Amino acid sequence: MTQEATVEQPDGVRAQARLARTAARVLAAASRARKDAALAEMADALDSHVPEILQANAADLVNAEGGDMSAAMLDRLRLTEHRIAEMADGLRELIRLPDPVGEVVRGSTLPNGLQVTQVRVPLGVIGIVYEARPNVTADAAGLCIKSGNAALLRGSASAYQTNRVVVAILSAALASSGLPGEAIQLVGAQRATVAELLTARGLVDVVIPRGGAGLIEYVVSTASVPVIETGVGNCHVYVDSAADLDMAEAIVLNAKTSRPSVCNAAETLLVHRQIAEQFIPQIARALQGAGVTLHGDPDVARLAEEVEPATDHDWATEYLSLDMAVGIVDSLEAAVEHISRWGSGHTEAIVSDSASAIGGFVAGVDSAAVMVNASTRFTDGSEFGFGAEIGISTQKLHARGPLGLPELTTTTYVVTGSGHIR
Amino acid sequence: MTQEATVEQPDGVRAQARLARTAARVLAAASRARKDAALAEMADALDSHVPEILQANAADLVNAEGGDMSAAMLDRLRLTEHRIAEMADGLRELIRLPDPVGEVVRGSTLPNGLQVTQVRVPLGVIGIVYEARPNVTADAAGLCIKSGNAALLRGSASAYQTNRVVVAILSAALASSGLPGEAIQLVGAQRATVAELLTARGLVDVVIPRGGAGLIEYVVSTASVPVIETGVGNCHVYVDSAADLDMAEAIVLNAKTSRPSVCNAAETLLVHRQIAEQFIPQIARALQGAGVTLHGDPDVARLAEEVEPATDHDWATEYLSLDMAVGIVDSLEAAVEHISRWGSGHTEAIVSDSASAIGGFVAGVDSAAVMVNASTRFTDGSEFGFGAEIGISTQKLHARGPLGLPELTTTTYVVTGSGHIR
Repeated sequence: MTQEATVEQPDGVRAQARLARTAARVLAAASRARKDAALAEMADALDSHVPEILQANAADLVNAEGGDMSAAMLDRLRLTEHRIAEMADGLRELIRLPDPVGEVVRGSTLPNGLQVTQVRVPLGVIGIVYEARPNVTADAAGLCIKSGNAALLRGSASAYQTNRVVVAILSAALASSGLPGEAIQLVGAQRATVAELLTARGLVDVVIPRGGAGLIEYVVSTASVPVIETGVGNCHVYVDSAADLDMAEAIVLNAKTSRPSVCNAAETLLVHRQIAEQFIPQIARALQGAGVTLHGDPDVARLAEEVEPATDHDWATEYLSLDMAVGIVDSLEAAVEHISRWGSGHTEAIVSDSASAIGGFVAGVDSAAVMVNASTRFTDGSEFGFGAEIGISTQKLHARGPLGLPELTTTTYVVTGSGHIR
Repeated sequence: MTQEATVEQPDGVRAQARLARTAARVLAAASRARKDAALAEMADALDSHVPEILQANAADLVNAEGGDMSAAMLDRLRLTEHRIAEMADGLRELIRLPDPVGEVVRGSTLPNGLQVTQVRVPLGVIGIVYEARPNVTADAAGLCIKSGNAALLRGSASAYQTNRVVVAILSAALASSGLPGEAIQLVGAQRATVAELLTARGLVDVVIPRGGAGLIEYVVSTASVPVIETGVGNCHVYVDSAADLDMAEAIVLNAKTSRPSVCNAAETLLVHRQIAEQFIPQIARALQGAGVTLHGDPDVARLAEEVEPATDHDWATEYLSLDMAVGIVDSLEAAVEHISRWGSGHTEAIVSDSASAIGGFVAGVDSAAVMVNASTRFTDGSEFGFGAEIGISTQKLHARGPLGLPELTTTTYVVTGSGHIR
């Protein structure tokens, strides 16, 4: 009820951001013990409110089924008892991770005796704009609380009922643990609220959009608040002339088919001309056997059956489906050039046994992650051992690659003297 | 000549950015030795072209004297033989600093045997928008080259002739050292070019504005390219009830008067009520003796002579002149509250011998730097031992405080396996 009232007032997001700011100052000073206790209480609260969450989710699903949502999207929206238990476990896993706040990043005593330390502090108020999956609500809230920040969550309209109940439960648990409940707030799902969040300069410290290219584009062109772009992955696998072709087959197959709907799945395969005659038929069989539709250049179409012609659209697209663009390149440099033109700066892989080719590829591509003889699917916070992630940054500023807890902080220089003047 | 032709074409900035991007890829792969050799050549070239630079500068000064530029601004615009020698020495100092590119920030071997290293790489193309001082042209170009980036420099119209000659000299020296001259380019000084730079998404990796609050505000509301805000410093000194008042006097005097026109100069003095009766007359005498005009609240006006009444405008203003706002606060919390409301997040200082007051102040203020018993003037890249800085970031993302060479880089995760799949 209060939630709806807040959402309906004209200055809704700014008013919410002001409350979040006050809450953030309390969170910033909270000890790890208090934040961990809150996370435990939040996890328990999810476990003990499963029926309410499922009921709200059922309402969202009924609405969505009346619309034109794809089966895949409906599946992302759907919560089950098991998925709610996973959300709760995600919060409990955060308890085990170290607190980034207070970490001394560097420190020294200057020649004049001034002691300089650079210390991690929370960012403050973090806005997160995301699409259908309601499990993001709990993950994002937990990461923000653990890192001492307040979260303004702007989920999609399709998940609004679910998000509303989940946020009410988490916020109440936070309050009952003694921290301010306003540190976790849901923003209304009206169209205008995204722009309100993105322009709440001075109230919101950063907005992290999680979603497709369209959302990211809208966000960066609208925001006056700083943004961390995430999630668009037009990832490439380059199979070099010096590749072990069986290794290459396994890596390409894994990168494309193990989970095609995620951002670290591969979308384009580039094959060195010297091995194309042998490798293209081999990989085409393997991919097509796994249900993948190939979109190839004319040379590829000569070497394999049932290849759709690839257009510029194919080189540019993040399919997120069982489709793969396939091209033949004359050299490593041509592969790097192709990636530099069409890639999104997420993850590129090379399969090769040549040290000089590997070196050239690593130096040449400009992406958040480069995989050498490994699947693109490894670009992931939990695979990297960060324990949890709020997304994968494809921008160069602040943080690039998986965003873990330290990436949700900034730093302050604390300089201690004894009457020092210049 | 070529410069002007470039500037006049409608797609000028984007065309320049494309050239810069190609140059940046060469710079990114250049060894420290090659970059250092280029810096030496750039420094020598400045030294051997002093007459041309002074002649161009004289033309800018003649134009400026016809306008309404203040004496202080005219002084910033003016180059002398000595100032040009300082620009050259600044480039030579960069040679001595370590190359941030290639530094391994962290690395580990995951349980599955994958080796993960996070390595520093250049940002790419850096746009810098700055005001009158032409020495920034050489400083910024040098920092970008040392960190492996290309620089698109957008100086003010008033310094255009000087900047054009300086950039031509630096760019030619870069080319003669074997690196691409397009890595240092001057952008036309027309009004529209700032917006063109700020929206060249995909071509420009980051824009760093150096200037007043108006410029920063314009930049963040216009940019779709990521921005690092710098330079607005509404800095505070808080004199606590437990302060050594002679130390406090020395620090306030230094913070306000040693160089009032820079961003780390103090603008507001907050005094704890318990010591106000003793300290206000003492500090008012000292400041007024140094030519400072005081703008005080009514309590301050009762304790000192010739105090102008302070309005909200005074609390909010970065004077950059011999003016200081002075307020009396009832507690440390009230001081923190005042700073949180009016500060710009640059630097705040506390003078106190109380460990608990110091702890409360450090935890309470949310700024790039906090000085304990030291002047605000110490927030400075060269004071911190970073050797050089391109500005002082007052934003929380990417880098906060003085921006040295590592802050002009991003990172890539390089992940090495032997056929790893998920």
